[in-house]
Amino acid sequence: MSDFQTLREKARAFAEARNWDQFHSPKNLTMALSGEVGELQDLFQWMTEAQSHELTPDQHQAAAHEIADVQIYLLRLADKLGIDIPRAVEEKMALNEKRYPAEKVWGSSLKYTGYQREDDSAS
Amino acid sequence: MSDFQTLREKARAFAEARNWDQFHSPKNLTMALSGEVGELQDLFQWMTEAQSHELTPDQHQAAAHEIADVQIYLLRLADKLGIDIPRAVEEKMALNEKRYPAEKVWGSSLKYTGYQREDDSAS
Amino acid sequence: MSDFQTLREKARAFAEARNWDQFHSPKNLTMALSGEVGELQDLFQWMTEAQSHELTPDQHQAAAHEIADVQIYLLRLADKLGIDIPRAVEEKMALNEKRYPAEKVWGSSLKYTGYQREDDSAS
Amino acid sequence: MSDFQTLREKARAFAEARNWDQFHSPKNLTMALSGEVGELQDLFQWMTEAQSHELTPDQHQAAAHEIADVQIYLLRLADKLGIDIPRAVEEKMALNEKRYPAEKVWGSSLKYTGYQREDDSAS
Repeated sequence: MSDFQTLREKARAFAEARNWDQFHSPKNLTMALSGEVGELQDLFQWMTEAQSHELTPDQHQAAAHEIADVQIYLLRLADKLGIDIPRAVEEKMALNEKRYPAEKVWGSSLKYTGYQREDDSAS
Repeated sequence: MSDFQTLREKARAFAEARNWDQFHSPKNLTMALSGEVGELQDLFQWMTEAQSHELTPDQHQAAAHEIADVQIYLLRLADKLGIDIPRAVEEKMALNEKRYPAEKVWGSSLKYTGYQREDDSAS
Repeated sequence: MSDFQTLREKARAFAEARNWDQFHSPKNLTMALSGEVGELQDLFQWMTEAQSHELTPDQHQAAAHEIADVQIYLLRLADKLGIDIPRAVEEKMALNEKRYPAEKVWGSSLKYTGYQREDDSAS
Repeated sequence: MSDFQTLREKARAFAEARNWDQFHSPKNLTMALSGEVGELQDLFQWMTEAQSHELTPDQHQAAAHEIADVQIYLLRLADKLGIDIPRAVEEKMALNEKRYPAEKVWGSSLKYTGYQREDDSAS
């Protein structure tokens, strides 16, 4: 089994062993995912960008735990929807390759719509 | 390479090919992660829990894209912090096993703190 | 002074008395806002919709505190950007009146884009 | 009527005129709130803090619209829970005054728990 499959099975077994699967509707899991991302925001909100690169050991440990929590709920969400994460990522990356041609968006953080708009107005 | 490593390398190469790495501070990536989770919320916010299990093909495709986006930013964030996601997940799951003993939390969605509080008041 | 102005001044004085204004960039305040919304998600994530209408006194108190926190950061964010919230709300509501004509969207939760798309395909 | 009451009534009337009140459970409104905050994140995610203070007219208009959307859902959420926002804010601010004494937290962004911990270890 791949990494993703292994972790997906573990997350599923954890929920089933606690009879928590009943709470894991895609809607609820999306809220739980958002709650965990909120904890990442708490960690970084008052840091400068530079500080966010230079965490203390305690902050680094906290970040690892929060990233794990986000990953666990994302695995659960994808599992409940029958979505294979690695395949979905590959597909989205292929789409992004087309949407953001490297030579056109070099060093610019404009989003796709922004890029399109800029492109249109130049034509 | 494992699945996670393969996708991490692809996400890194994608950012570097566009000179976008400069924008990828952990602070900024956390905001981007949250923005993508916001799109998942948009998808599910007015659905009932039952409806969130029964997506139309278009909704399912949209969910797959949003889950992929969340995964990509999570991979970038962990990469910039030097955090190995599968290991972080394994560690957090081991912690969760201790925090939420199956026989004590069976069928209850009380969170750890809630569970602890309930347990304390019972003693 | 209106309610909004009174609370805006209080929130500003609170930050200044602690020399916290330096942390209150619009970017940072947006993250803080999101962190507080994450706590609201924690509160409601495992509840059914029906349960979310019927909070216990403790849950109701927690919701009031989180709603207050969201409001305080929203006041700070608008203050730093020079945005008058009541006026912005009036303008947005006028826009929404046009976007979602009552007779066309009655009882449907389709978003503006969804509604537009449906309308287009019907024509 | 105060500003808050006026806007609360308008937001309520808007929902009722469209038969949308049925979708406005506190759970769903929390998701919608989060989705709107996600759009604020999109706006600010790649900006530096300094840039987030100096928006272009288009960005400023977008920020005003998103802040209005957050405020509208917050008004709806508080309305459905019977929470008076100005009173909840006053109560929370009084609590914050005690939690973060100005002379102790001057210029420090440590959160309450962080502050407490620091204080404990110093004693």
